[in-house]
Amino acid sequence: MNLIARRKDEHQKTTTVRVGDVIVGGPELVVVAGPCAIESYEQLLSTAPEIKRLGATMLRGGAYKPRTSPYSFRGRGELGLEILSQVKALTGLPVVTEVMDARDIEQIAEVADMFQIGSRNMQNYTLLSEIGKTKRPVLLKRGLAATLEEWIFAAEYILAEGNDQVVLCERGIRTFGTYTRNTVDIAAIPALKELTHLPVFLDPSHGTGRWSLVSPVAMAGVAAGADGLMIEVHPQPDVALSDGEQSLNFEHFAELMSKVRPVAKAVGREII
Amino acid sequence: MNLIARRKDEHQKTTTVRVGDVIVGGPELVVVAGPCAIESYEQLLSTAPEIKRLGATMLRGGAYKPRTSPYSFRGRGELGLEILSQVKALTGLPVVTEVMDARDIEQIAEVADMFQIGSRNMQNYTLLSEIGKTKRPVLLKRGLAATLEEWIFAAEYILAEGNDQVVLCERGIRTFGTYTRNTVDIAAIPALKELTHLPVFLDPSHGTGRWSLVSPVAMAGVAAGADGLMIEVHPQPDVALSDGEQSLNFEHFAELMSKVRPVAKAVGREII
Amino acid sequence: MNLIARRKDEHQKTTTVRVGDVIVGGPELVVVAGPCAIESYEQLLSTAPEIKRLGATMLRGGAYKPRTSPYSFRGRGELGLEILSQVKALTGLPVVTEVMDARDIEQIAEVADMFQIGSRNMQNYTLLSEIGKTKRPVLLKRGLAATLEEWIFAAEYILAEGNDQVVLCERGIRTFGTYTRNTVDIAAIPALKELTHLPVFLDPSHGTGRWSLVSPVAMAGVAAGADGLMIEVHPQPDVALSDGEQSLNFEHFAELMSKVRPVAKAVGREII
Amino acid sequence: MNLIARRKDEHQKTTTVRVGDVIVGGPELVVVAGPCAIESYEQLLSTAPEIKRLGATMLRGGAYKPRTSPYSFRGRGELGLEILSQVKALTGLPVVTEVMDARDIEQIAEVADMFQIGSRNMQNYTLLSEIGKTKRPVLLKRGLAATLEEWIFAAEYILAEGNDQVVLCERGIRTFGTYTRNTVDIAAIPALKELTHLPVFLDPSHGTGRWSLVSPVAMAGVAAGADGLMIEVHPQPDVALSDGEQSLNFEHFAELMSKVRPVAKAVGREII
Repeated sequence: MNLIARRKDEHQKTTTVRVGDVIVGGPELVVVAGPCAIESYEQLLSTAPEIKRLGATMLRGGAYKPRTSPYSFRGRGELGLEILSQVKALTGLPVVTEVMDARDIEQIAEVADMFQIGSRNMQNYTLLSEIGKTKRPVLLKRGLAATLEEWIFAAEYILAEGNDQVVLCERGIRTFGTYTRNTVDIAAIPALKELTHLPVFLDPSHGTGRWSLVSPVAMAGVAAGADGLMIEVHPQPDVALSDGEQSLNFEHFAELMSKVRPVAKAVGREII
Repeated sequence: MNLIARRKDEHQKTTTVRVGDVIVGGPELVVVAGPCAIESYEQLLSTAPEIKRLGATMLRGGAYKPRTSPYSFRGRGELGLEILSQVKALTGLPVVTEVMDARDIEQIAEVADMFQIGSRNMQNYTLLSEIGKTKRPVLLKRGLAATLEEWIFAAEYILAEGNDQVVLCERGIRTFGTYTRNTVDIAAIPALKELTHLPVFLDPSHGTGRWSLVSPVAMAGVAAGADGLMIEVHPQPDVALSDGEQSLNFEHFAELMSKVRPVAKAVGREII
Repeated sequence: MNLIARRKDEHQKTTTVRVGDVIVGGPELVVVAGPCAIESYEQLLSTAPEIKRLGATMLRGGAYKPRTSPYSFRGRGELGLEILSQVKALTGLPVVTEVMDARDIEQIAEVADMFQIGSRNMQNYTLLSEIGKTKRPVLLKRGLAATLEEWIFAAEYILAEGNDQVVLCERGIRTFGTYTRNTVDIAAIPALKELTHLPVFLDPSHGTGRWSLVSPVAMAGVAAGADGLMIEVHPQPDVALSDGEQSLNFEHFAELMSKVRPVAKAVGREII
Repeated sequence: MNLIARRKDEHQKTTTVRVGDVIVGGPELVVVAGPCAIESYEQLLSTAPEIKRLGATMLRGGAYKPRTSPYSFRGRGELGLEILSQVKALTGLPVVTEVMDARDIEQIAEVADMFQIGSRNMQNYTLLSEIGKTKRPVLLKRGLAATLEEWIFAAEYILAEGNDQVVLCERGIRTFGTYTRNTVDIAAIPALKELTHLPVFLDPSHGTGRWSLVSPVAMAGVAAGADGLMIEVHPQPDVALSDGEQSLNFEHFAELMSKVRPVAKAVGREII
């Protein structure tokens, strides 16, 4: 089928997606970093300048968090967005944050430079279509058990509404494996490059669920051709309200950046 | 954790859910039948009296269809609901139909005796919470790659809003298998009976994706303790606009019913 | 491809496999029961008459056990075979036991009425071919991640050597599920009936890994068309050297038999 | 449990395995290349000098091939070993070839510098133990659905017999994915480095099943810390008797090597 998302031929360039001043899909290897959930002004304000100093060019942080249990911490909501807005103003970093409900789009659009659609909502067609109408950049995470074809069709729901600013983000799939939280499908990165013209990110934090594996898998993703990385960083992973086990502290994030840089260079990418 | 959904002890009775005159979770084995999608008034009107005559006590039919591709047939929408309303009035069968978008709840509630939440939306928490507020019976299908725990937590999102009329529906999970569309997790039926007090249905049509396997798997589900079955029936599966390969024609549905009856009886269940 | 294993048309009868006096693939629903591993003469001698009294017509028990760790209990070996031989003589029950190594075939053949090939060896082609040369009945368990096609080809390795006494045994596949040890692929039973003319068994003990789920899944298997069941029974599951969690004690096995009987009858099968 | 395979602490060095003159597990990134199956003297003789020239330091080639169907090409057997022996003598490349049957060990040992145990035999405990007794280097491929723990225990079967020359080879696992033949579990590489002191290889040819993905996934493996790569190379993939779709021709192998070199350098590894 003649999808908008499909790469027409091998010479077609990867679409570039502009998020604030950051250009995704070009020579720069874009590193997005920040906490899983925005917990407090102090937490985000201590994190953002640090990740910027180390080479990240976008800030992530969830205000609305999809959680398996209704009784878990589900994010700070509006307060989270306000914190994000203030920290964005202070650091100048463009921000990406998740939208779970089409009714929140307008509110989130006031601060987000890029919407994130999470794995659980990859086939929430209402949300995809509404995001499609916004023309705002979108980071579309792969569903837990989505085939490449289903994922590309999910992107097509957005593209079909006229929004061509879509970045795909591999974040691991569900398999029989138990050592890691998910199984990073590393071949998906070059496969999506063959099949589509959209930029592709890797999230090794959710992909592995273990901080000690985040660096080597990030390096692998860059070597395989990823246009960007999404990394969970928290000032004190031990006391994080969510995803502490897979979050890097500043020291480990610095180490990741120092290891990723030479690999990026080896494949012709730059980290600013 | 002390979830509302949890079975407190082995003596706790299964919750009964009343859908029109039908009582789910009691001695009756409830059979829901009908087409995947409502295609036309003629289609639904020819199907409904036939499935009723053969022993089904609820009618299914989709007006809003979640489809992998945005370019596939996505249901008749409002027109579909109108057809459903008319056929319900003529046959007296209570109806179940899918809701994909919280904004459609009010409209769908005018005709639906039971809402269906599909696999793709099992973790659409907005939708779960809004459905929870309606107090209307809900059929909650298992997500493609959902663990039992995640599924029970999804039900909890509905229960936590005060709606206790939740029925769980196993419909197959995604595995490496290729012969069947999904892999029916038959042990999930007794496992959910251990873990929760909610009624459990089986959908062998989506579970197998092949009409020839629907009857034996339906029989298995009943033997394993299912409180109900959900079966796709179409007057002419060959020309169905969706899911034709897994739909039974009237003759095959009659055969299914004649095979399921003795198994139901063997496990102490009745088909009216 | 024109495999020996393939069902030529829908009228072709299921192959009958004769194990001692037991005929597999005919009207009888064959129940094989016994411990995972033969631990002692007392253990097997206390078990065998009990399962016979309750309706099992074949005895299972492992002398050579494939174990994930080289440091786990790996069976009594020759001593186990001797115990099996004595108990067989005393009870008259034909016996099935696993063969892991082609070099053991001759020794095992002195006592086994039926060889079992375990999941880990489903694609051990040396073993399959050597078993094929024996013409002795074989129970071929499905590999953990084997497709139906790969499983049928594994049977073909045996059939191609001239041994047509092959019974396929579904025992659950590996999926993302964590509540059960494996995921019983219930649709595999009718699917194999469509695709091949070989009898099909179900092992709900390995299939679920939880004794409380063994009965309902056994009932499901019979309803779906299984020709036999393989059930782990141990006098004291709590102290079993292997697979205690999934073994039934005598009381629970009696309960299983009383529940399986009416289902068997409902689908036209008999338990002797 | 205190396994021989376990890394005692983070300072323990990776075990080095010597295959001919090649040292696996040291600073060199070892590239093993060659055809899936040895088809003819001409085929292997044209391949070996070419891969050597391009930087491979070991030759692979199967004489005994495990095949899903008994009617597929199953390798040249003894003739294949003879060809392998001649080409080894001519090129000086140490060779690795698969052993499927413990009875073939002696014969294969006459030519093989390293035994390969394939995925299907990862839990063939007879074979593992017998290989353990040889003290010859072994490449132990991961089973299709093996957890890391099961795989490490399989290695332990070899180590427990006194053979410490074991290299683990990730080759993709079976998942729901359909675009690639298997799903390369890239995180397994650093995870095994944490858990064991054994060298780890990656086979991106079987891992992806598509030649166009072999290079990027090979690069990813090196970035993630693999000690070596195993690559299928065939003079004419289009006419290969097995695995043609995933085999590189000489031109593509040259390209792979030119892309892998800078990544290897970036992570401190050398290709000779």
